[in-house]
Amino acid sequence: MSEFVIGLLGHGTVGSAFAELIEERADAVEHVTGLRPRIGGVLTRSRGDVDEILASSDLIVEVMGGIEPAKDHVLRALRSGKHVVTANKQLLASHGEELWGAAREHGAQLRFEAAVAGVVPVIRVLQESLAGAHVERVHGIVNGTTNYILSEMARTGASYADALAEAQRLGYAEADPTDDVSGADAAAKMAILARLAFDTAVHLDDVSYDGIEHITSDDLEYARELGLALKLIGTAERVGHPTEEGPRGLNVRVHPAFLYAGHPLASVNGPFNAVTIEAPAITEITLQGPGAGGSQTASAILGDVISAMIPPAQTPPTRHALEIVKDVHSAFYLHMEVADRPGVLAQVAEVLGMQGASIKSVVQKGLGQNARLVMVVHPIRESSFFAAVELIDRLDFLRSHPRAIRVIEEHYG
Amino acid sequence: MSEFVIGLLGHGTVGSAFAELIEERADAVEHVTGLRPRIGGVLTRSRGDVDEILASSDLIVEVMGGIEPAKDHVLRALRSGKHVVTANKQLLASHGEELWGAAREHGAQLRFEAAVAGVVPVIRVLQESLAGAHVERVHGIVNGTTNYILSEMARTGASYADALAEAQRLGYAEADPTDDVSGADAAAKMAILARLAFDTAVHLDDVSYDGIEHITSDDLEYARELGLALKLIGTAERVGHPTEEGPRGLNVRVHPAFLYAGHPLASVNGPFNAVTIEAPAITEITLQGPGAGGSQTASAILGDVISAMIPPAQTPPTRHALEIVKDVHSAFYLHMEVADRPGVLAQVAEVLGMQGASIKSVVQKGLGQNARLVMVVHPIRESSFFAAVELIDRLDFLRSHPRAIRVIEEHYG
Repeated sequence: MSEFVIGLLGHGTVGSAFAELIEERADAVEHVTGLRPRIGGVLTRSRGDVDEILASSDLIVEVMGGIEPAKDHVLRALRSGKHVVTANKQLLASHGEELWGAAREHGAQLRFEAAVAGVVPVIRVLQESLAGAHVERVHGIVNGTTNYILSEMARTGASYADALAEAQRLGYAEADPTDDVSGADAAAKMAILARLAFDTAVHLDDVSYDGIEHITSDDLEYARELGLALKLIGTAERVGHPTEEGPRGLNVRVHPAFLYAGHPLASVNGPFNAVTIEAPAITEITLQGPGAGGSQTASAILGDVISAMIPPAQTPPTRHALEIVKDVHSAFYLHMEVADRPGVLAQVAEVLGMQGASIKSVVQKGLGQNARLVMVVHPIRESSFFAAVELIDRLDFLRSHPRAIRVIEEHYG
Repeated sequence: MSEFVIGLLGHGTVGSAFAELIEERADAVEHVTGLRPRIGGVLTRSRGDVDEILASSDLIVEVMGGIEPAKDHVLRALRSGKHVVTANKQLLASHGEELWGAAREHGAQLRFEAAVAGVVPVIRVLQESLAGAHVERVHGIVNGTTNYILSEMARTGASYADALAEAQRLGYAEADPTDDVSGADAAAKMAILARLAFDTAVHLDDVSYDGIEHITSDDLEYARELGLALKLIGTAERVGHPTEEGPRGLNVRVHPAFLYAGHPLASVNGPFNAVTIEAPAITEITLQGPGAGGSQTASAILGDVISAMIPPAQTPPTRHALEIVKDVHSAFYLHMEVADRPGVLAQVAEVLGMQGASIKSVVQKGLGQNARLVMVVHPIRESSFFAAVELIDRLDFLRSHPRAIRVIEEHYG
């Protein structure tokens, strides 16, 4: 069995989640890559020797955060030809060109999906799927804390202060929330996205930003009246240069913004992140998912680690001999045209109940002598439900065949 | 200058869009890869020699569709170690294992982002970002034709027949729409997604499907009343095996389904595609974009071609010397507390007008002696708008400082 040794720089929330995840998924990684991953050395503030870790590892995962000593460690790894996976947005937004240059020069990979929008695969999509596209604009909700606060203000009418306190209670906001609520965190992420989307060097200082500290519940009330959603939006887009002919300019900024209900970012609520990328040939694509959290960030790092381990675009042989199952559980909508007389609903409910179906909601509408009966039933094995529908179809008060459509239950938010 | 020669098998809508796109983006591709791409031979029904094309190309793009002779050509290319990029969902859903096996055996890449959900990068994300994840479920809107028809029925109250006719008029549905409206097209795509998500061989025949031909406008009316969205949904998920202990089963199916308003797929309207992938460590991610169309499919193929050309995860040096521009155009929401007296709105409008701002909508509310005036203005250069806000702030009837928030305009749908 061949091993693949990962050196881990940093052992906070993300570092320890990653160490756990790599152990839990070692079999899966070995299946995909042919190599068994193992954490070699770990560097924390109090222990570990960085020289030893660099020398003994096949790949370095950097989750220390901050500029130094992270920058020095990452540069040394790249210069010795070692691949690096990092979640460090500050480092990339401030010193990205130096790091990417070192990676190119020494033939090492520098991967950083986890630095922007957690497990939402926007880095990979910009670098690979859209490597040949002419991107016009990137819009993103790239800070989960502020999106949670604004969603709560919209949903409950809470004040900014109360929604922030709730976010802190739930662990979505830090004790000192300045970096998130001021827009600074989102600005660093937008600098990285803009660099990739527009092939232009973008430093953190090039990004204007404005936070959500001054938003009131009143703003969200009007948003509702006007049919708008209020979000902290990062934007990077090509713009006309104001004074000169010649190459078009690039603008990168972060600020609160209202979105019309039809915008793909308008319905992104809670501590989620989402990014919309617009280019003429593709119209636009939107990627959405949880923005942070140790487990999500660790998953993003794992995806990068595996990519660094495998030859590209291999579809590994199948492994799980899972059996194809056809009869599953579903919730259903059931639509019936019936005679409008007493006892109809009771009989339908009885037949459903005999098959184990439980009714969630009912709408009945009179239509002269007939009535339309529509119900939603809780999840039930499909074969049982269809057996009930067959029995219902034989009831003498049915005016046409009953019709069933599956309902997908709400699973978050 | 080094060249990279692409052999093109098929020259219909997608093939010709790809040939145009590769010419248009040749500079960008050369920047990213160091190689200049060029279409070598083209195989159509009436011209081209497949042996010559295979021999002279660095990579093969297969957009013929159908099983044979596409399968034979793709196998021959892979067996000679040539990378293949294909958009052929029928071929992969029926003979994927044989093709992926040939690719592994001969060290060739077989890429197929364009086969499922157009430019939505779900193949790459499943194969790379989530290669180490334990996926529990995939839900997808993977057929744009049916999503357009259901969206139109929901939006306008049209019958199925009328919405289908409109889709045909707009080119979203073919003259014979059976493959789309029956769910067969979506079933082939779900077979491919299930194979990748669950590492289990899934043949087209393993996928149950049911189409939208029987959906009535009545169903959509109730959906509205119950707060649901009606979509043609493909699902692939781990399920308990009904009769035995041991490994859990896999279910893959396509059918119309209602979604609660909070579901990330509920707001995907028109000819769009979207896929939600659920796994414990990541919660879920959703990818959304245009599902088909020659230009979008060609873009997905281009992304795959570039990936086959480059060493993985290189961040190319910056190229466009775009200038950072800070003053851009935005639409704005403007919130003012004013004295409730005649002429207030007119004066505000005059100041805005002097700076070139045009008002889109206004809401005014009396609050005793004062009033709250909220308006949305059409896009305007930000510096001009803020100059107007400064002037408005000096008006004697203002009761507090005016507050401005940017509005992102609707850009599709």
